[in-house]
Amino acid sequence: MEICSYITGFVDGEGCFCVSFSLRKKMKLGLEVRPRFSVSQHHTSKEVIFLLRDFFKCGGIRYSRRDQNYKYEVRSIKDLVEKIIPHFENYPLKTAKKYDFEVFKEICRIIYSNHHLNYEGMRRIIELSDRINTRGKKKYNRAFLLKLIAR
Amino acid sequence: MEICSYITGFVDGEGCFCVSFSLRKKMKLGLEVRPRFSVSQHHTSKEVIFLLRDFFKCGGIRYSRRDQNYKYEVRSIKDLVEKIIPHFENYPLKTAKKYDFEVFKEICRIIYSNHHLNYEGMRRIIELSDRINTRGKKKYNRAFLLKLIAR
Repeated sequence: MEICSYITGFVDGEGCFCVSFSLRKKMKLGLEVRPRFSVSQHHTSKEVIFLLRDFFKCGGIRYSRRDQNYKYEVRSIKDLVEKIIPHFENYPLKTAKKYDFEVFKEICRIIYSNHHLNYEGMRRIIELSDRINTRGKKKYNRAFLLKLIAR
Repeated sequence: MEICSYITGFVDGEGCFCVSFSLRKKMKLGLEVRPRFSVSQHHTSKEVIFLLRDFFKCGGIRYSRRDQNYKYEVRSIKDLVEKIIPHFENYPLKTAKKYDFEVFKEICRIIYSNHHLNYEGMRRIIELSDRINTRGKKKYNRAFLLKLIAR
């Protein structure tokens, strides 16, 4: 379908597959991992943000008054594994983002099978996530996270 | 074809349809108009820049050492009218960029039919171009250009 390839092309330019970590004392390893797929656009192009939600039939849209951007975001691990990942397997990315996607996919599958609740699974996620999210400043570096879960 | 829709999706996020002006004393109206279609990517995603050139079978690629970007650019009015514009008519853009494209198309057609060599044609181009290129700083504003060609 043409719309499927359009979506892949658009996401190849504008989308983000990223993974963040939060410290959670109440969790077994003291660490929560959150993968997310997102696409942002200036409000003048908000139609395509709504198109993404209608297309993937999951996720939500938020408006940021500060930068006048609409952001489409999928955080549910079930939706990521069952809807988002299969799309990009069927309609592959062509830029360097395809490597981010491959790593993201592996992280999501570890979480989906609950292996992130064990030390080995979380260690693997921390090491994988170090290969993506390379642009922005990281909240916690790899060494810090590995030390945290090893306690 | 899937690749056609992918290209439109990618350009909808990353492409640029813009028009610039240069003062040229030797030209009849003292002004040269240059439309161009371009897409830039960081060198890590240069494959898609080469894909664009192979796909459209026109234009050139330049590498900027300063920002480590590869830029695909089509400046030839013949290629713009005969190759680039028909693609986006057959596989339409979906973001606000579609308005830029519609204006760009009209400007290219005025130039292709040589009407930009007459005052009325150039006046129309100056007014149309004021509707696109709205983000960056303009080298010459509309009032200045209209005054220039009216001499």
